[in-house]
Amino acid sequence: MRAAPRLHWSIMKQHKIAIMGFGTVGGGTYDILTQNRDYIKRTQGMDVVVARILDRSDAPLVARGIDKSLFCGDVDALAADPEIELAVETMGGVEPAKTFITKMLRAGKSVVTANKELLAKHMHELAPIAEQNGCGLYFEASCVGGVPIIRALNESVQGDKIVSLYGIINGTTNYILSKMTDEGCDYATALAEAQALGFAEADPTSDVEGFDAAYKLSILGSMAFRTCVPYGSILREGITKVTAGDIANARELGYTVKLVAVGKRDGNNIEARVHPAFVPNDHPLAAVSGAFNAVYLRGDFVGDLMFYGAGAGAHPTGSAIVSDIVKALSGAAGYGGFAGDSLEKGISLVGDFVSGYYICVTVADKTGVLSKISNILGDNGVSIKAAVQRSSASGTATVVFLTHRAHEHSVMQALGSIAKLASVERIDSMLRVL
Amino acid sequence: MRAAPRLHWSIMKQHKIAIMGFGTVGGGTYDILTQNRDYIKRTQGMDVVVARILDRSDAPLVARGIDKSLFCGDVDALAADPEIELAVETMGGVEPAKTFITKMLRAGKSVVTANKELLAKHMHELAPIAEQNGCGLYFEASCVGGVPIIRALNESVQGDKIVSLYGIINGTTNYILSKMTDEGCDYATALAEAQALGFAEADPTSDVEGFDAAYKLSILGSMAFRTCVPYGSILREGITKVTAGDIANARELGYTVKLVAVGKRDGNNIEARVHPAFVPNDHPLAAVSGAFNAVYLRGDFVGDLMFYGAGAGAHPTGSAIVSDIVKALSGAAGYGGFAGDSLEKGISLVGDFVSGYYICVTVADKTGVLSKISNILGDNGVSIKAAVQRSSASGTATVVFLTHRAHEHSVMQALGSIAKLASVERIDSMLRVL
Repeated sequence: MRAAPRLHWSIMKQHKIAIMGFGTVGGGTYDILTQNRDYIKRTQGMDVVVARILDRSDAPLVARGIDKSLFCGDVDALAADPEIELAVETMGGVEPAKTFITKMLRAGKSVVTANKELLAKHMHELAPIAEQNGCGLYFEASCVGGVPIIRALNESVQGDKIVSLYGIINGTTNYILSKMTDEGCDYATALAEAQALGFAEADPTSDVEGFDAAYKLSILGSMAFRTCVPYGSILREGITKVTAGDIANARELGYTVKLVAVGKRDGNNIEARVHPAFVPNDHPLAAVSGAFNAVYLRGDFVGDLMFYGAGAGAHPTGSAIVSDIVKALSGAAGYGGFAGDSLEKGISLVGDFVSGYYICVTVADKTGVLSKISNILGDNGVSIKAAVQRSSASGTATVVFLTHRAHEHSVMQALGSIAKLASVERIDSMLRVL
Repeated sequence: MRAAPRLHWSIMKQHKIAIMGFGTVGGGTYDILTQNRDYIKRTQGMDVVVARILDRSDAPLVARGIDKSLFCGDVDALAADPEIELAVETMGGVEPAKTFITKMLRAGKSVVTANKELLAKHMHELAPIAEQNGCGLYFEASCVGGVPIIRALNESVQGDKIVSLYGIINGTTNYILSKMTDEGCDYATALAEAQALGFAEADPTSDVEGFDAAYKLSILGSMAFRTCVPYGSILREGITKVTAGDIANARELGYTVKLVAVGKRDGNNIEARVHPAFVPNDHPLAAVSGAFNAVYLRGDFVGDLMFYGAGAGAHPTGSAIVSDIVKALSGAAGYGGFAGDSLEKGISLVGDFVSGYYICVTVADKTGVLSKISNILGDNGVSIKAAVQRSSASGTATVVFLTHRAHEHSVMQALGSIAKLASVERIDSMLRVL
């Protein structure tokens, strides 16, 4: 316990840092550190200077009119530079980011990173390296842009056991699904527009197949449940099969389709999954649209909390990086949550879980089909909350079911049997309900 | 910079703390510390024990079946007890809380408090006492229940200049206004029901007149703008004059009426105000209903952030207190933001500001009245965005205006002139638009 630190202007220290990877987020970080340099000096009592920028060439510096003398093309020279206290990693991807971060940590320099893929896959290797070298690893920027959700999980609500975490944590898919919802267009059209506007990459796989959200859930879940939620154990489904019809059905039933990340704790069992889901319209997450993100937590005493903001972008993500730079340079410890004695023991990640389900089936337009399907659901312990049958012109009908909460494996088993019915043409969709 | 601390179980320290004031929030804090004691031991590496409970009598301990030996009726004895490391203050009100907190700080014990009134009025006296005695003052619980908004403002987004802060930060008024909105009832009916359900006190003045929200805005604004936002300088209007008609008009125009706290920074000018307002239905704050609270921030780089959760209650507020206890006992500094060298210099609190306005006027139902009023508004530089006139049976008409953004003083001047028109019976309402 101590009082808030007094700041002594006469001896204000200049901190020299390096940025590794000078793309969108690296550039955003540079903007904030330079444009708000005086503000940070006044209010935080520290002068942070970007002294080195590492990249493949000095072209990104030239493009921004930055003095070329800041350029550094050699990571070993950077690691050996005694003037550099801290390195920001904004390269993305596993390699060479992992090697570069390791070199910095081994040289005793703390690292601030936005790299969710690297953290999700290799945090358990990097954390001990930071510890052994007396420096820290800071990654507020890895999840949900500038929203301080890592801090919230790591150093707030410490008296609460987090029982659930629901997140809309990928801006690209939320943009696409919001567009499909608002305009009634199909997935391909919405994706093309997202790509044209820069909200989706040319190869959108990492976003639309849920990899990006799963990386983030691995990080957030590990912090929330104080255990290791391995990226590879997360159930992951993308949004590529969501149809305009699913979204229309959702609207009719009072739901909005979102790509959600779900983490739940029940005793020592944890479930972790990323998939599109029907979110009830009266849930605060249903209103999170476009490129915005949010994380909705429930603690056993605090109740429900929601954290909302821009999920990505040069400046929101740069803001989180600058916030971590200030934290690191002020001497605060790096984030825990992946390793160490404070992890909860005996936690299991379970594959089965309970959820409501939306099921859409195309059937022969004959009497008795609905009752056959209902019987199969019932035999598997899945009870129906609502069912609608609509005839189409071609002699087929579409049947939409909403189920009460049921076990995932029971629903899968039922769908297997339903698919085999002669009167069932195809199972169009199965989406879980939040 | 250092690595996340390793926790050593063999030497886990037991921390003895005291609770001063054992009412709702004190009791909620006790619940969490006892029921989650093992969880906190496991995950935070500290054993926190409530060793003393200070109150007027031991009745609240007896009521909860707590060992009477924990009771302490003498604050000086508590201050002198070397075993007690930290005191929680959950008494509320200015005195004797201020005296008791001062005694604890002077005895070198850190204090965790939920007392917004005391902080808003006397933080500038208490902060130096904490500093001089080498201990800290922690007050996450003073605003927005268990939502970690004080941490967000104090130790997140440090690289951003906060340009605006909008809050729904009083649960009682939000409950009353939500009820009026959902059920179309008038203020008195909604208040009576809130009182019956325990959401409003027998004397609701502090909530419904906006005092409570102004205390919190003083605290939040001081942290956000890194200056002192004196409680007494905040423009404050309560909700007692909001009518069912205002709420119906709001709905018709696409707004929801909320008691909002507004803080804005423009260069070195700050505005701070608490009043009912028309919140556009597509703003995330419009959906914050019932006893929920939220704070919506805008930073110059991070963009928009929202923090949402239960605004009050034994366990949500207790959760914030426990979180501060863990923070204090782990050696982290108390919150700054009210005093010290890090405050922004040369900041002025300005009385005038710019807003949209909703104005409702009862007039004689004759031609030409609307144009007279419009002329007065225009002469004062207030331009009209929408106007609706409705005749009533009694020979009068109601005119509803929405204005474009205008200066508060211009609108007030115009209203003064409008009130003097012979054809104007009365000005029914004036509410600002968020």
